[in-house]
Amino acid sequence: MIRFDSDYIEGAHPEILKALADTNFEQHVGYGCDDYCERARDIIREHCGDSTLGVQFLVGGTQANVTVIDALLYSYQGVISADSGHINVHETGAPEATGHKVIALPTTDGRLSLEQIAECYHNHWNDHSHEHTVQPGMVYLSCPAENGLIYTKAELTAISEFCHKHGLYLFVDGARLGYGLCAEGCDVTLSDLARLCDVFYIGGTKVGALFGEAVVFKSAEMHRSFRYAIKQHGGMLAKGRLLGLQFEQLLKGGDECLYFKLARHANAMAAKIRKAFESKGIPMWIDSPTNMQFPLLTKEQQEILGKKYIPEFWGKYDNERDVVRFCTSWATTPENVDGLCEYISIML
Amino acid sequence: MIRFDSDYIEGAHPEILKALADTNFEQHVGYGCDDYCERARDIIREHCGDSTLGVQFLVGGTQANVTVIDALLYSYQGVISADSGHINVHETGAPEATGHKVIALPTTDGRLSLEQIAECYHNHWNDHSHEHTVQPGMVYLSCPAENGLIYTKAELTAISEFCHKHGLYLFVDGARLGYGLCAEGCDVTLSDLARLCDVFYIGGTKVGALFGEAVVFKSAEMHRSFRYAIKQHGGMLAKGRLLGLQFEQLLKGGDECLYFKLARHANAMAAKIRKAFESKGIPMWIDSPTNMQFPLLTKEQQEILGKKYIPEFWGKYDNERDVVRFCTSWATTPENVDGLCEYISIML
Amino acid sequence: MIRFDSDYIEGAHPEILKALADTNFEQHVGYGCDDYCERARDIIREHCGDSTLGVQFLVGGTQANVTVIDALLYSYQGVISADSGHINVHETGAPEATGHKVIALPTTDGRLSLEQIAECYHNHWNDHSHEHTVQPGMVYLSCPAENGLIYTKAELTAISEFCHKHGLYLFVDGARLGYGLCAEGCDVTLSDLARLCDVFYIGGTKVGALFGEAVVFKSAEMHRSFRYAIKQHGGMLAKGRLLGLQFEQLLKGGDECLYFKLARHANAMAAKIRKAFESKGIPMWIDSPTNMQFPLLTKEQQEILGKKYIPEFWGKYDNERDVVRFCTSWATTPENVDGLCEYISIML
Amino acid sequence: MIRFDSDYIEGAHPEILKALADTNFEQHVGYGCDDYCERARDIIREHCGDSTLGVQFLVGGTQANVTVIDALLYSYQGVISADSGHINVHETGAPEATGHKVIALPTTDGRLSLEQIAECYHNHWNDHSHEHTVQPGMVYLSCPAENGLIYTKAELTAISEFCHKHGLYLFVDGARLGYGLCAEGCDVTLSDLARLCDVFYIGGTKVGALFGEAVVFKSAEMHRSFRYAIKQHGGMLAKGRLLGLQFEQLLKGGDECLYFKLARHANAMAAKIRKAFESKGIPMWIDSPTNMQFPLLTKEQQEILGKKYIPEFWGKYDNERDVVRFCTSWATTPENVDGLCEYISIML
Repeated sequence: MIRFDSDYIEGAHPEILKALADTNFEQHVGYGCDDYCERARDIIREHCGDSTLGVQFLVGGTQANVTVIDALLYSYQGVISADSGHINVHETGAPEATGHKVIALPTTDGRLSLEQIAECYHNHWNDHSHEHTVQPGMVYLSCPAENGLIYTKAELTAISEFCHKHGLYLFVDGARLGYGLCAEGCDVTLSDLARLCDVFYIGGTKVGALFGEAVVFKSAEMHRSFRYAIKQHGGMLAKGRLLGLQFEQLLKGGDECLYFKLARHANAMAAKIRKAFESKGIPMWIDSPTNMQFPLLTKEQQEILGKKYIPEFWGKYDNERDVVRFCTSWATTPENVDGLCEYISIML
Repeated sequence: MIRFDSDYIEGAHPEILKALADTNFEQHVGYGCDDYCERARDIIREHCGDSTLGVQFLVGGTQANVTVIDALLYSYQGVISADSGHINVHETGAPEATGHKVIALPTTDGRLSLEQIAECYHNHWNDHSHEHTVQPGMVYLSCPAENGLIYTKAELTAISEFCHKHGLYLFVDGARLGYGLCAEGCDVTLSDLARLCDVFYIGGTKVGALFGEAVVFKSAEMHRSFRYAIKQHGGMLAKGRLLGLQFEQLLKGGDECLYFKLARHANAMAAKIRKAFESKGIPMWIDSPTNMQFPLLTKEQQEILGKKYIPEFWGKYDNERDVVRFCTSWATTPENVDGLCEYISIML
Repeated sequence: MIRFDSDYIEGAHPEILKALADTNFEQHVGYGCDDYCERARDIIREHCGDSTLGVQFLVGGTQANVTVIDALLYSYQGVISADSGHINVHETGAPEATGHKVIALPTTDGRLSLEQIAECYHNHWNDHSHEHTVQPGMVYLSCPAENGLIYTKAELTAISEFCHKHGLYLFVDGARLGYGLCAEGCDVTLSDLARLCDVFYIGGTKVGALFGEAVVFKSAEMHRSFRYAIKQHGGMLAKGRLLGLQFEQLLKGGDECLYFKLARHANAMAAKIRKAFESKGIPMWIDSPTNMQFPLLTKEQQEILGKKYIPEFWGKYDNERDVVRFCTSWATTPENVDGLCEYISIML
Repeated sequence: MIRFDSDYIEGAHPEILKALADTNFEQHVGYGCDDYCERARDIIREHCGDSTLGVQFLVGGTQANVTVIDALLYSYQGVISADSGHINVHETGAPEATGHKVIALPTTDGRLSLEQIAECYHNHWNDHSHEHTVQPGMVYLSCPAENGLIYTKAELTAISEFCHKHGLYLFVDGARLGYGLCAEGCDVTLSDLARLCDVFYIGGTKVGALFGEAVVFKSAEMHRSFRYAIKQHGGMLAKGRLLGLQFEQLLKGGDECLYFKLARHANAMAAKIRKAFESKGIPMWIDSPTNMQFPLLTKEQQEILGKKYIPEFWGKYDNERDVVRFCTSWATTPENVDGLCEYISIML
């Protein structure tokens, strides 16, 4: 059986494993204060074109989300999110566990619009009894969204301007950031994100690393406090060097860095799979330009595919079809994709 | 400079790195539901002589501590700890951040006694206004303690009996468990811990792994709920296989497993260092049988050592001397220890 | 200006004030352990026909809600509520502030149905990755609901059976309980609630008291722990006697107690107001049998009414009309209601 | 039996009850936005000589403490307190329940000194791994302290200067503030507190009110946010007018207000009791100038007193004597005190 159900089913890119082995007996101070982390920070600052950014490394996405939210918000503030946002649906109430309500807004395509954010914000403050409801303190966007869609630079800019005009933090969850930045049609860069967001992170776990998310802060003050929050939330890795080392391997080399190469590869693999489905007249649920594709499949089609392949059931679409996710990654081999495409072409 | 300041300054035992590389492209389901984790669970159950135990793998010690405490206690309950306990002094208030007060008791040697625990418990319930104080719900012991001391089987048995008679959970923090179990004079085994505790964990980070703590539960019910708590606290590693794989490598092979070998090695190295100090008439702060030794050193002695070696300043002892920690680990080389001993012998 | 915007705009029933004055210099132990509270507990147990019930007195509704939720649930559990439920919309995220997500379900009429609850529960447990979502631990119903509607005994019984079959607590928010129990067509009694719920409360603040909610527990164990939770949440009134005294005054006298008399009075006043609107062809938003009525009014009609009366704007209904709440209470005078009805009749 | 065990065993000063009765049927908007609260705010501002202060009214002391702490601190910050401070010992871990560790410092007399605060603060920031410990964010002082002692203006000024130089909030718990301000030798005024503290409160519950604490804020920004925190913590009284009305009655009239008169009366009563004990050669545990006196009594003496009087057992002093608390209040009658003194004089 060959898995296409997620982008974290293999280990790490071999260069990372090699670097781990090569440096295994070096002695380093713990908790992210070592030279590897410092170098990775500098590399990220260079990508972002801002040498003043704060950078901290965490192990996983939920950890990053909840630590950022809790570190930045006051106890009576909540975070605005698409109702399909990862923090709202798939983190076992982690933000709430730190005391912060997710103010979940319904969306048509999994992406928050400026209009919705503005409406939510103004509804709050225009309510004469606003103290009886949670104060919006932050906007959370996933880039790409949970369905693979991306935001344009114009959209992010407008949301950022609104946020900063009204005292809301803008936080971008970049668990799959690479796949988004390298998507066809994406006009957003790391340097745009650094400029428009208060905090965002560069996801490593799903883009070539064993694990790791690099959280980037615009405010030095915020960044300083964040290390307390990391420790308090159990997210301060003793051998922090492991995180710095991985991001150094992924991001060194500027635009030609491994991170972008791997993301482009995964996107290309996903585009092939999509084409294979479309050639058979099977429509996509949504027009995703990234590493996740969502064909609408009948139970019969799923059964046929299920003899050789493991995709992810995503939800019921209509009485006949379900939404099914096919996910590629840095580790997806062209052989497996070609095999899948042939199988689709012949068997469906 | 050669570091002796902690037991997490290098990477992982080479056999672990090799296993990582060998299996890197295998595809596995995430979140600790893979075959590696299952095998590691079985190996741990065998060590403990109890096939019904629940086992979950977390990345680090603070994460393990806070997740266990929060998962098991009701909101109005607190955890009894030595005031020198890691949860009380070095986790940025992580238990409190989940709502649970650490009921910190002063100790003479960093270890809780049955008498103290009983006094604390009875003082609470004998107070007619006990509802105005936090209800003790759990006893937390570090084994070995933060100063390297261990508990005897008789001590643990007595504490366990008291806890279970009075409805308190007994939780053992085993971040350095290997060094304790393999200490000279230790009469406690994994199977004793599994029998006496409600929850304990086998620390990997400090004993040969890149990272990882294996949390062992006696109650199946508790264990089931624990996975929610792990996710909620941001501790559910996407590529959970990495944890299972490491514990499989460390613990396979019964009494001759890598974990015990590495711990014995570190303890032997620490004993050598101790002897070197004692040969020079330098007393130890405390009689630790494990991988941490605490000579009392003058500022002058520290300066001399500091030219070649990095130990950890532990605290002021008296007007002339400080407590200084020398820590060995699975990665400490005999060459470095011999060099240090010679340096002590000649230079101090 | 005469207010009809809420049911907590006046003080307390004069008999309560008289009792306060008469007993002002009595000396009593604090925190709800006095004779007044004990007598009030017994009176409530008699109303409920169960001498084993636990009863504690709190000052307000949000306090009662959040203390119950936090005291009963484990950290990874959430509470199922109508999305219009008070805990979800009007308590500044109080449940989330204690770590518990409100699992908000959309409703057509502000009341949860058995089907929804069952679907939510089974969706959770049928999801193979259920640990990534909040575990349902409790069902929260407001009786009457925020829009004045009530549940039938058959509905409550079915929900109760489902909850207890599946290990969910059933918690009824009775901030306006009196108005519900005394509504025309209501077949639910205090003794039904005590039998069907794990916890419910009898609201005093809105039904004749200065303040106060009597929280009733079926389980003695739960009840014992609850006093810790009260204190921890800052809800333990020093002069607890004030709460016992009020509930004694309200509830003594069995079916002819003041509490029911006041509720019946308010409901009758509300019915009059409703009739006045309907006589003018103005429809109600919802068919409420309790002390809150919601006519659909144009801006012009609101303006005319606003010259003499203060109702509560509830929300936009369509392009022409808004939902407006008229609220009566134990303190509403027939004179004011007659005046309002006449004004409606003449002016609208 | 006559009680001297606490200062909240009776109701409220009759003028408060009268005002409640006189205004019972007035209609007012809820939640502290009514005219009574506004007038009370103005009266407090006048006492403090600062028309810009923010004032909010809460029902009780634990509620006030925990709401202030949680509203002001970031999640990774804790509050410095004497280890005998009410928040540390008698609030069921309420601050911790909101996520904030109490950094408890041992004291000789229940009062924090500038030296201790400074040492605690500098120890934190001088520790190279300070992120592993809770960041001090606030200093909490009880005035008077739990043992009745007061701070001088010089002490408060020095602490205030240190706090504001180092970014710590200074918060004064004034649950018994009246008794402190009116103590012989006290050189602190309300206007000093308003100037020196970031937040403090004027306790009503123990000084003449049925209940109520008036929380005073120097920063308007802080004050605005505080209303969210009140609601979130379940502390927003629906009939907020009850709080405003009480503080208006207590504080109107400037230096000749009821609040001060009642406090002076209680202090005088306490001084009489003290003198009675001392006349018999019975020493005090501590030199309290306020309404609480702590004679050291043998078991035999306690038994004799216990035939007619109920004081509060405070703790064991030595093998022969206990510390026993005698508490007076606004409601203590000269007759009862004279009776007690005579009884002491004759029977002990």
